[in-house]
Amino acid sequence: MIDLRSDTVTRPSADMLAAMTSAPLGDDVYGEDPTVNALEERVAGLLGHEAGLFTVTGSLANILGVRSLVPPGGEVLCEASAHIARAELGAHAAVSGVTTRTWSASSGQIDLEQIRALIAPDLGPYFVVTSAVSVENTHNFGGGSIQHGYDVLADELDARGIPLHLDGARLWNAGVATGRPVASFASRAAAASVCLSKGLGAPVGSVLVGSVELIREARIWRKRLGAGWRQAGVLAAAGLYAVEHNVERLAEDHANARAIAEVLADAAPGSVKPDQVETNIVVADLAATGRTVAEVVAGARDAGVLIGGVGATQLRVVTHLDASAADCRTAAEILARLIG
Amino acid sequence: MIDLRSDTVTRPSADMLAAMTSAPLGDDVYGEDPTVNALEERVAGLLGHEAGLFTVTGSLANILGVRSLVPPGGEVLCEASAHIARAELGAHAAVSGVTTRTWSASSGQIDLEQIRALIAPDLGPYFVVTSAVSVENTHNFGGGSIQHGYDVLADELDARGIPLHLDGARLWNAGVATGRPVASFASRAAAASVCLSKGLGAPVGSVLVGSVELIREARIWRKRLGAGWRQAGVLAAAGLYAVEHNVERLAEDHANARAIAEVLADAAPGSVKPDQVETNIVVADLAATGRTVAEVVAGARDAGVLIGGVGATQLRVVTHLDASAADCRTAAEILARLIG
Amino acid sequence: MIDLRSDTVTRPSADMLAAMTSAPLGDDVYGEDPTVNALEERVAGLLGHEAGLFTVTGSLANILGVRSLVPPGGEVLCEASAHIARAELGAHAAVSGVTTRTWSASSGQIDLEQIRALIAPDLGPYFVVTSAVSVENTHNFGGGSIQHGYDVLADELDARGIPLHLDGARLWNAGVATGRPVASFASRAAAASVCLSKGLGAPVGSVLVGSVELIREARIWRKRLGAGWRQAGVLAAAGLYAVEHNVERLAEDHANARAIAEVLADAAPGSVKPDQVETNIVVADLAATGRTVAEVVAGARDAGVLIGGVGATQLRVVTHLDASAADCRTAAEILARLIG
Amino acid sequence: MIDLRSDTVTRPSADMLAAMTSAPLGDDVYGEDPTVNALEERVAGLLGHEAGLFTVTGSLANILGVRSLVPPGGEVLCEASAHIARAELGAHAAVSGVTTRTWSASSGQIDLEQIRALIAPDLGPYFVVTSAVSVENTHNFGGGSIQHGYDVLADELDARGIPLHLDGARLWNAGVATGRPVASFASRAAAASVCLSKGLGAPVGSVLVGSVELIREARIWRKRLGAGWRQAGVLAAAGLYAVEHNVERLAEDHANARAIAEVLADAAPGSVKPDQVETNIVVADLAATGRTVAEVVAGARDAGVLIGGVGATQLRVVTHLDASAADCRTAAEILARLIG
Repeated sequence: MIDLRSDTVTRPSADMLAAMTSAPLGDDVYGEDPTVNALEERVAGLLGHEAGLFTVTGSLANILGVRSLVPPGGEVLCEASAHIARAELGAHAAVSGVTTRTWSASSGQIDLEQIRALIAPDLGPYFVVTSAVSVENTHNFGGGSIQHGYDVLADELDARGIPLHLDGARLWNAGVATGRPVASFASRAAAASVCLSKGLGAPVGSVLVGSVELIREARIWRKRLGAGWRQAGVLAAAGLYAVEHNVERLAEDHANARAIAEVLADAAPGSVKPDQVETNIVVADLAATGRTVAEVVAGARDAGVLIGGVGATQLRVVTHLDASAADCRTAAEILARLIG
Repeated sequence: MIDLRSDTVTRPSADMLAAMTSAPLGDDVYGEDPTVNALEERVAGLLGHEAGLFTVTGSLANILGVRSLVPPGGEVLCEASAHIARAELGAHAAVSGVTTRTWSASSGQIDLEQIRALIAPDLGPYFVVTSAVSVENTHNFGGGSIQHGYDVLADELDARGIPLHLDGARLWNAGVATGRPVASFASRAAAASVCLSKGLGAPVGSVLVGSVELIREARIWRKRLGAGWRQAGVLAAAGLYAVEHNVERLAEDHANARAIAEVLADAAPGSVKPDQVETNIVVADLAATGRTVAEVVAGARDAGVLIGGVGATQLRVVTHLDASAADCRTAAEILARLIG
Repeated sequence: MIDLRSDTVTRPSADMLAAMTSAPLGDDVYGEDPTVNALEERVAGLLGHEAGLFTVTGSLANILGVRSLVPPGGEVLCEASAHIARAELGAHAAVSGVTTRTWSASSGQIDLEQIRALIAPDLGPYFVVTSAVSVENTHNFGGGSIQHGYDVLADELDARGIPLHLDGARLWNAGVATGRPVASFASRAAAASVCLSKGLGAPVGSVLVGSVELIREARIWRKRLGAGWRQAGVLAAAGLYAVEHNVERLAEDHANARAIAEVLADAAPGSVKPDQVETNIVVADLAATGRTVAEVVAGARDAGVLIGGVGATQLRVVTHLDASAADCRTAAEILARLIG
Repeated sequence: MIDLRSDTVTRPSADMLAAMTSAPLGDDVYGEDPTVNALEERVAGLLGHEAGLFTVTGSLANILGVRSLVPPGGEVLCEASAHIARAELGAHAAVSGVTTRTWSASSGQIDLEQIRALIAPDLGPYFVVTSAVSVENTHNFGGGSIQHGYDVLADELDARGIPLHLDGARLWNAGVATGRPVASFASRAAAASVCLSKGLGAPVGSVLVGSVELIREARIWRKRLGAGWRQAGVLAAAGLYAVEHNVERLAEDHANARAIAEVLADAAPGSVKPDQVETNIVVADLAATGRTVAEVVAGARDAGVLIGGVGATQLRVVTHLDASAADCRTAAEILARLIG
């Protein structure tokens, strides 16, 4: 099977496994796992922050990051299809008591006008305060889109004294696609998360970065949420390997995604705009094709390709390091037949 | 002073006080206050629901109503300037673990297109489910506007099996302004709140209505939130009096608000659109006047009129039963001088 | 009916109602209700604290008081049958995220040895910290008992730097029974609550006292919990009246309770120890009488007396200002016949 | 260094690492990791339950297990030094809204009399309901003690219809020390957790077991708490290896602990009762030795032995598979010199 449902499905390579089995370990609850410490330091450095915290998922890194910026009863603004709003099961409210207001934009983009209108004016202590704005870059449900208004928003928030939260689950993709150092994005945020288990191919894990004080508090809350792990260095070793070896090659995933998009656009004009495929995610709209999501997903499965549906009429195809250029070509042809 | 900051500032009249001191009382925690029971039954009947619960505020009625429809980690959709999103201090998240996504619309209106785009598709158990849509009618920060798409939205939600929550703090105003029975609005909602202490002039109190089962559960949560009061009949008597005597006269408040709007529109063209003043709230935008909110609020206070600011450039003027037509004329002239 | 189920069942007297209808009112959410302000100031003064907050119930005053001393994930220690542990529906956990460990003692007494053993040693940031100790005085389910170890515990906690929370729902009774000013108890606590609607006879309301800073924060959380009321002065007036007129007379309730206890002890030796009836609550144990709680409660009701059960074999009888000495004698005789 | 601070400090052996690198993997969020599935099935079977859930820590397994039995505002009873009360940072309250009342007993034992007194009688919907009783077996801060009243409590709770929660972080030790199958304990509980990363030596991970329905809900909440991991099979493989190879050998840890206890009892009579050392934990009380915890911990460290303090005057020494009998003898002699 060619599995293009998500870039989370990758399996560790032999070299990554070798790194995992040779890593020095310790008890991370005591802060004594040298490999975890090395990973946290390395990622914090890459992202231009003082400190890092190794977490079991990107969702957890986001939960800890947002709660460090927004008190219970305060609000974070985000785009309506952001991962924190749609795919984290309401944890920010259910666990942290944080409320949300949202703007909606094509491809999940930053929309400065809408954000300005949403930011709560200071009406005294009985009104909700906008404690942070969260941006996902690249934006998953927006089709792996790069946030083109990122710097302008960061400037605006700086000027207003409102902290920025960056959900950087796929920030590595944004860095490679734009040619910018990831620190140029992440350092603008008061708290930022990156995933090691998506495009980078580690089996498990994300990193939250921020100030020393923010990370100290996040470490305690990580424990409170039951996620203070022990000899986590076995996983951190995979993360370190991934950071050293698997970032630059994301360009291949991007090229493969673009190639798939072009095949689909030929087969079903209007279903995909290839030049909007900026990274490793292709979202194809079946509305005009006369096919349903369910039948295309099932047909693809029968032909050996796994993909997913998002929304009522949309397919999502995600490229990654376990899907070669040839795999992606094969998958594109199969999908083209099904939607054409 | 003529106090037009809010319709919450009214004081009980002599007749209302007489009703309060002659009401039979009991312990409402035991369900034994006959006046509370009479109020709950009366309001439930007026709103077309099985049962009612007398609460200390409209915010509490909303907290209990929303949590009865939305589980922790689930979401309610609402307009971005809705009272539940802006003026209840994030309680729905902080107390009930409920998360929110929002649409934005002029005058806080229902926007069916945006709502359809927000309603979460069923992507399985790992995604946030849209458990309810909440509508405020009339809409406070929308300038006392009536929700013109109310019935169409209610039909749509019925068809999709998504419950509607109605924040009817000022539903009485909507009823009087449209000539419709309030039940024609409230009975479309699975849970609805109305306030007795705004336009109706009772000192304290709101009522949540819903099914017997919903209210039974809400009664327990009211106690859990520390708001299960004892001889509350003394306040319920004011509420009953208000419901019997002070609904129809809201038409006067609406006429007064419209008259104020016309004076302001003459003085500062563009600051107010009088035909958008549908009920008892006037929002005037100072952007084009060269005046700041702070200076107009202060100037009015010096001249004996209290008003409030909402947002960066907007004044809010609210009419009510303690402000006569003459008071309102006086206030309008003072404000006209200040912004003209 | 003679209603001795609780001292919460009292109804306002004619004089109290007169005070309520003549009180100056305003909007308490804006801090402008002069009667509320007067009540808060008066009670804070009586209790030896800087500031007060008028709340709809004692439970709410406790919720706000405890959360002001204990952060989410922190713990408060209390006796196992304390009102905050048994009768507030888990609000401290459900609303404030506060956890509890308990000691158990006859009559709900302070047990210094047990408390010392419970206080968490400082084992670093991954262990629960004892953020406060809460004491109920008098202790409701302990039979209206006075806390005899109160001052010693307060000294010990002072020395350790752990704040004391006082649930003083019936602190007025403790003051009258001991002849001590209530401030001599309340000023030892960082946060204390007193009720106006129990022995003092107001229809609704309690007051939380503490520092200016603590009360400022509590006021915001009162609003967040949906309990920031409007023209609450109508109720505050009853509270002020109660504080001025109904404190000293609690001695009558205490004498009535003692008299009932003596009658019951005569009728069913061992069911009550009259000298342990220190204030206005009599708890009678039916274990040795051969009667069940249900049959005695039902028999009493048939004979015109309302009482309640607490626990499997215990009755609770509570005296108050709506039950005269003669009422209490009548009730005692009826109960004596039923359990004798 | 000989590290006897905890049995969590073990590192994976070469064979365990080999199992980890050869395990088939998949995405556990989709339920597709065959190694995770095998582990969950294997452990559920061993514990006599329908289904299992692999979690990042024992704390998380406890959080998910307790919340499945106790609704927000409900209570769980436990011993005052239980791990869920002391060492999980108040998560049951802060995350799940669950409140706690506690009994206190030597060695953290079940005390049926106290538990019976704590179980809340049914006083109607306004009182806290005892929704579950939690027992830790063996009991960590009780010195690795086996719960001798376990079956009697389970019978009592069965009769009353109150579910039992088992914190079985070290249930493997209880099984080996008593010669009973672990299922004979765990099958009595509605929800039970076991750790793979303590005595069994896996680097990370625990398993929650219960009914299919309970685990389905727990899986969703695991995701909500940010702990739904991806290719977790790499860790599950270590857990499976541990379950197959490292259970029976716990007897060696128990013998080593007993031997240490005897050496310490000789050196400082009264500090330890060797016959109370039932499993792999030795708690030594320094009260009568004239030494402080800090100085003994520091002295041991200087001599190459790591141990921890619990409470004001107590040391804790924990044996495990990375500490040989010789290591333990060496450590015992060093400690004996320091406290003798």
